[in-house]
Amino acid sequence: MVIDCHGHYTTAPKQLQAFRDEQIAALKDPKAAPPKVLASITDDQIRESVQPQLTFQNDRGTDVTIFSPRASAMAHHIGDATTSLDWTRHCNDLIYRVCSLFPENFVGVCQLPQTPGAPLANCIDELERSVNELGFIGCNLNPDPSGGHWTAPPLTDRFWYPFYEKLVELDVPAMVHVSASCNANFHATGAHYLNADTTAFMQFLQADLFKDFPTLRMIIPHGGGAVPYHWGRYRGLAQDMKRPLLTDLIRDNVFFDTCVYHQPGIDLLLKVVPADNILFGSEMVGAVRGIDPETGNYYDDTKRYVDAAAIDDSAKRRIFEGNARKVFPRIGRVVAA
Amino acid sequence: MVIDCHGHYTTAPKQLQAFRDEQIAALKDPKAAPPKVLASITDDQIRESVQPQLTFQNDRGTDVTIFSPRASAMAHHIGDATTSLDWTRHCNDLIYRVCSLFPENFVGVCQLPQTPGAPLANCIDELERSVNELGFIGCNLNPDPSGGHWTAPPLTDRFWYPFYEKLVELDVPAMVHVSASCNANFHATGAHYLNADTTAFMQFLQADLFKDFPTLRMIIPHGGGAVPYHWGRYRGLAQDMKRPLLTDLIRDNVFFDTCVYHQPGIDLLLKVVPADNILFGSEMVGAVRGIDPETGNYYDDTKRYVDAAAIDDSAKRRIFEGNARKVFPRIGRVVAA
Repeated sequence: MVIDCHGHYTTAPKQLQAFRDEQIAALKDPKAAPPKVLASITDDQIRESVQPQLTFQNDRGTDVTIFSPRASAMAHHIGDATTSLDWTRHCNDLIYRVCSLFPENFVGVCQLPQTPGAPLANCIDELERSVNELGFIGCNLNPDPSGGHWTAPPLTDRFWYPFYEKLVELDVPAMVHVSASCNANFHATGAHYLNADTTAFMQFLQADLFKDFPTLRMIIPHGGGAVPYHWGRYRGLAQDMKRPLLTDLIRDNVFFDTCVYHQPGIDLLLKVVPADNILFGSEMVGAVRGIDPETGNYYDDTKRYVDAAAIDDSAKRRIFEGNARKVFPRIGRVVAA
Repeated sequence: MVIDCHGHYTTAPKQLQAFRDEQIAALKDPKAAPPKVLASITDDQIRESVQPQLTFQNDRGTDVTIFSPRASAMAHHIGDATTSLDWTRHCNDLIYRVCSLFPENFVGVCQLPQTPGAPLANCIDELERSVNELGFIGCNLNPDPSGGHWTAPPLTDRFWYPFYEKLVELDVPAMVHVSASCNANFHATGAHYLNADTTAFMQFLQADLFKDFPTLRMIIPHGGGAVPYHWGRYRGLAQDMKRPLLTDLIRDNVFFDTCVYHQPGIDLLLKVVPADNILFGSEMVGAVRGIDPETGNYYDDTKRYVDAAAIDDSAKRRIFEGNARKVFPRIGRVVAA
């Protein structure tokens, strides 16, 4: 079985974006009444909307996608806590409907109703709702809800601890995933995403978060940002700072996905990072949609790169399935091994 | 000949830091008179201070280092334009003295007196002084003088154009190099530096800066941040955005150094980035100072990785010397080929 740990609902029916557009318009014109309901979306419209994902799963030979709302659309910097909560619940409810219609193909991961400067109570509530009521198995946690201004405390700060307590209690992991950038310096998928991955890893290296939460599990997407390419730098920094060996530091707690869109990048990842800390992911349908003229295949068809990598079958099985089951144990409740 | 394009004066005599400490203290207590002069530093103290670099050059088989003030100490976010100018000129003057004492070992690159929100006139003046009076051959340009708050316009914004005009006129390149981070999210050498590299590359990909300045040359240090590892992602993003091929986009304008501290990282860099766009660099004595227990060599002894890489002798010669002479043409005035 091949589990893709990183898929976003980038093809949602247009009613969702229409709701969001109205919500944002209402923020700009307080006299306009905020929309109360998302326009009705039929099951057929949902079925139609995920045909691209189903086709890719079939064509590429993957089985199930751990599926979450479109990351760039989370945009936690827009509006206030009410805006974020309203938007988030609609997005998560739609993921729930996808997963209910295609229980063999999709398992849900939730967006969180984060807001810059706001407490995490709403996030804890929505995580509980998503896991206990919607059957979700994880969440996407935005380390920078300001959208490129980086005003939140580091992920290792005690600010986040109440949320981590809930993650541990529910035994679900978080993928560290920023959203759109409202800072002109940062292109979202070409800079902000990768910077956040790199930033989060270094935060984890510096602090004792996983001593405080030995069972907390964090996935750093996009192949870990810059980290595997600079693995020697990080090994050296950890050494200079009298921190643990990287392999010990990440062992049970930090995982990278395989959203790296060329063979040399995947080869590097698999060479330097222990196989037990890598989860197959493609980010499809996502950041890069074209076909690589150098290979004739989609850039984001990452299964081909892992298939072609010089690692043994045991490592491949763990990357494709075993590690995902370990990091997302609740997947076993919906997808049999 | 082996030219190291990336060395910082991290071992300057203690008088320099004492001056800086007094300068910062004076900012906090406006009643205290700001220091007027840097305490006297003798030539012998300067000779002594660069012994580590000279020893490493000798031990590692490198010949000349393109040498600039300590990057993390630029700290453009501290104080105002006067603070920055005063500090910068002292730092550059000290580099000049190092280069004058050891003209075969060091060639100067200047720090710029940047300040968040300030115009670039001071930077243009200091660049001219450094090049025309001190014989420097390039500069370090900070894309984020705010130190991790990213409040400046992107490097492709017209805000920077007057400075680029001066770079072009003087025929000197800029290394894109941030300084210390005053944002708790970003460890300087473990996150902020690499994020800035990644960010700058994506800015260059998005805009037509090099159409406006066909001879402008930018070096992205630390192996290009996350870029080579995600080369497929960037090729795909460029394709989706109808931008030029990456190899065409960077050909005469964007260069990466080899400050990547393990063999697999250097192998990846040399595999995906054209050899003509890579300059040998080590960042020594710099970010990582330890010895890698896996190899028994210093992490930042990057010459070993390039020596061991599977590239032909012509490519090695260009990476070690030829490309540096092309990017820093003024080096020919001080270091014969």
